[in-house]
Amino acid sequence: MRFDVFTLLPDVFDAYLNASILQRASENQLIETHVHNIRDWAAGKHHVTDEPPYGGGGGMVMKVEPVILALESVFADDPGCPIIMLTPQGRQFDQQIAQSYAAYPRIGLVCGRYEGFDERIREHAITDEISIGDYVLTGGELPALILIDAISRNLSGVLGDPTGALDDSHANGLLEYPHYTRPAVFRGWSVPEVLLSGHHAEIEKWRRRQSLQRTLEKRPDLLQNAQLSETDRDYLRSLGWTGQT
Amino acid sequence: MRFDVFTLLPDVFDAYLNASILQRASENQLIETHVHNIRDWAAGKHHVTDEPPYGGGGGMVMKVEPVILALESVFADDPGCPIIMLTPQGRQFDQQIAQSYAAYPRIGLVCGRYEGFDERIREHAITDEISIGDYVLTGGELPALILIDAISRNLSGVLGDPTGALDDSHANGLLEYPHYTRPAVFRGWSVPEVLLSGHHAEIEKWRRRQSLQRTLEKRPDLLQNAQLSETDRDYLRSLGWTGQT
Repeated sequence: MRFDVFTLLPDVFDAYLNASILQRASENQLIETHVHNIRDWAAGKHHVTDEPPYGGGGGMVMKVEPVILALESVFADDPGCPIIMLTPQGRQFDQQIAQSYAAYPRIGLVCGRYEGFDERIREHAITDEISIGDYVLTGGELPALILIDAISRNLSGVLGDPTGALDDSHANGLLEYPHYTRPAVFRGWSVPEVLLSGHHAEIEKWRRRQSLQRTLEKRPDLLQNAQLSETDRDYLRSLGWTGQT
Repeated sequence: MRFDVFTLLPDVFDAYLNASILQRASENQLIETHVHNIRDWAAGKHHVTDEPPYGGGGGMVMKVEPVILALESVFADDPGCPIIMLTPQGRQFDQQIAQSYAAYPRIGLVCGRYEGFDERIREHAITDEISIGDYVLTGGELPALILIDAISRNLSGVLGDPTGALDDSHANGLLEYPHYTRPAVFRGWSVPEVLLSGHHAEIEKWRRRQSLQRTLEKRPDLLQNAQLSETDRDYLRSLGWTGQT
């Protein structure tokens, strides 16, 4: 899968893309990321990419022309490619969106800086707008890396052990059960006995219950859309759950 | 404000911290970020930081001892410092949380890798757990940078023009109005006339209405907690809004 990123800060991407799982995915040619500097398409000696907003107010606005020219140039051979703008105005990114974009061979990611984009970019060149959460950031660079990371994990072969991902929080609609590793006792803090028992059916049952209980305590909203068995529902009801009848 | 970050990938932080607003904030001594490699506290010749989980299953789990020792060592002189774990199990990060942490002189940020942390870290050393969104990432490094960015923007002096931030999406509970900058016409796409009128009261009114309308269309859930005047409510009702009576 190919990611084309458009940014004014091309240097912030390499360090993360060259670490850990994304580095391996890149070496194995499962993903490739091309980072384009919007400034390269800005006209004039000074390559101006931003100007004050019409109508006044603080901050600077990214100009329409350099972004449009950059997108047209890079996607000239691929006019149907999805082009996502990272913006707090977008729909909220989640695991389902990550999975759905993993089905595309290529996507574009447009990162804002300053106060925002000239609205005409949004109207005429963008196919989707995504927000990673309800908070204010300095630019779209971290959100673009978040999308690259979350989408790439859904590509076949990217995770060394794909079964490890099935129980991840949000992968199955529930929060994950707690993990423990050696030592069995550290400063008097012990690992739950069932995990040391070797009794796999009991371990599975304990983990499922922990996962359900945590989701009920911390994120009961997730239970609305989680896939629950009748046994799951009975257990949740025993904890006081009253939802999804 | 001081950020102490605990990670197995210390190299991914510098590029973002040395760019744009965060770089300036650091140069102006408004923030300082210390990145600690958890591996430095892992015992033995091989500095093992992760092992398979008790009870089986895919993936690796971060060991309790190196993380506890790292936190005790770095916060020995500051035992009351908030220590935040970045985890999909945490409460959902938002602008209010960013503002509240901006009041602290120092916070710790603990980034997971692999399948997750040994649960005893969470139980005995962490004061808060934060999730940046409902999606699966490879580690806590990008979430830690998101927190540093969003929190720092709330510190006095970090933004060159603080009035520019007041209208940011989510800063006032609404999505932001659209921006335009020169040229007034590009490929026949025009800037709304009111913005070129120089009539400031009309511009303010248009922007407020755009902000309300967008929030109603894209994120009506935000209107529940937004600060709305009677004029705002009347306008929203004229668009079909039925909430917050």
